[in-house]
Amino acid sequence: MVKGPRIETREQVMFYDTDAAGVVHNISYLRFIEKNRTLLGSELGLDYKEMSGSGIYGAVLRIEIDYRRPGRLGEDLQVSGWLEEVKKVKFWCGFEIHRTEDNELLVASRQELALVKMPEGKPTRLPADWKKYI
Amino acid sequence: MVKGPRIETREQVMFYDTDAAGVVHNISYLRFIEKNRTLLGSELGLDYKEMSGSGIYGAVLRIEIDYRRPGRLGEDLQVSGWLEEVKKVKFWCGFEIHRTEDNELLVASRQELALVKMPEGKPTRLPADWKKYI
Amino acid sequence: MVKGPRIETREQVMFYDTDAAGVVHNISYLRFIEKNRTLLGSELGLDYKEMSGSGIYGAVLRIEIDYRRPGRLGEDLQVSGWLEEVKKVKFWCGFEIHRTEDNELLVASRQELALVKMPEGKPTRLPADWKKYI
Amino acid sequence: MVKGPRIETREQVMFYDTDAAGVVHNISYLRFIEKNRTLLGSELGLDYKEMSGSGIYGAVLRIEIDYRRPGRLGEDLQVSGWLEEVKKVKFWCGFEIHRTEDNELLVASRQELALVKMPEGKPTRLPADWKKYI
Repeated sequence: MVKGPRIETREQVMFYDTDAAGVVHNISYLRFIEKNRTLLGSELGLDYKEMSGSGIYGAVLRIEIDYRRPGRLGEDLQVSGWLEEVKKVKFWCGFEIHRTEDNELLVASRQELALVKMPEGKPTRLPADWKKYI
Repeated sequence: MVKGPRIETREQVMFYDTDAAGVVHNISYLRFIEKNRTLLGSELGLDYKEMSGSGIYGAVLRIEIDYRRPGRLGEDLQVSGWLEEVKKVKFWCGFEIHRTEDNELLVASRQELALVKMPEGKPTRLPADWKKYI
Repeated sequence: MVKGPRIETREQVMFYDTDAAGVVHNISYLRFIEKNRTLLGSELGLDYKEMSGSGIYGAVLRIEIDYRRPGRLGEDLQVSGWLEEVKKVKFWCGFEIHRTEDNELLVASRQELALVKMPEGKPTRLPADWKKYI
Repeated sequence: MVKGPRIETREQVMFYDTDAAGVVHNISYLRFIEKNRTLLGSELGLDYKEMSGSGIYGAVLRIEIDYRRPGRLGEDLQVSGWLEEVKKVKFWCGFEIHRTEDNELLVASRQELALVKMPEGKPTRLPADWKKYI
């Protein structure tokens, strides 16, 4: 793991996060993680409010996600995110989601991203000052 | 109701459409309706594949939706959509969602839309040949 | 409007809330409102963490929603919710979503709900102490 | 890859599938895949309409997904799904999503699942006749 910011966000499980099996639907966790990842990006200098202007967006290249235990309606969840690896044009972030009440690990994920210039979709170099994270 | 095309689409209720109460979540029906509305728009000459190019999009101004009976996991649903009223820059569409098995009405909705030029968000006149629907 | 609690929640517009027209998708606002409505319900004594146990859920009967101005990526939104009308087995809630930066009203909504016993879907009387809101 | 059914489903990219970067949002592909996976499960004897009755659900344990090229509004997508590996209580499915027009591969995914008895979340043995896929 590289040195860098660690972002903590919180979610309370809503009805729209759950499914008829009575648990949090697997797709909902990816929204929880995206919110955390967006704030992590802001912390790293990728202000997504400016993305529309610059046309440079963080594009997800690969997601690996493990579902360990089910979350349930009304539970408070703690989402943690950090920078895990930095290469020239790609980087990995790591995430964990714990149930707040008993600190049980529900979900772990790793996601590889790149900065791309839209609408061409061309990858661009990561910010120079990210060298400190390599 | 004006004369015009009537669009029928089908949905099979997936886990991600349901919630922990064991029924289709109220928000999911709006996705079902949007798909129908998009095809209705295509039928009326609003080709949404060309929207990105022209920058003219169908913007939803108002939604009224009544939930009559709950849909459930795995059910087949029939979505019907039609043009209900045409004004100068605004128009209303009507929708109904029936459970295919017993033709029970689950949801009824009316939606007011306008064509707007993005990114300014400025309303534009409806296509001239829509006069036949007034 | 009846007397009762007023709930304020905040949202920051994420990528998954937006669509290819560059604005917040109309369906996303309904998630923002549902979160507010859930907290409003808790304030009114409808603890949704206990709903799974009792089998009594707040069911949405009707939604009316007006889209006044478009929200955009990265904006901070303020969601307000309140109890608007209380009948024997049904009640209406009101909601407004403002852009925090300039207090512009983006969305207004009214939603009619009832408490229903699942899985039968049978309506149940509202809590006795809600009489004070009539 | 094991021998077994191969499921093909189609999606047309709707506004709610896209985001402000002008492309299909990474989370939307997981809905496309879930629909395919559900039909694959039906083909394999896991009738999800009966799941509510039996309380046995297909639970996702791990998702790996690679985003190769961006999909866009209005495009027709072809989703393919198949059984990739069968163990005693776990199995892997494979998925690919191609753009119909030019057969370009947009997304590839592998997903590990198990059958679990809810609400306990206890894993159950896979159907005996799946031995033929091992």
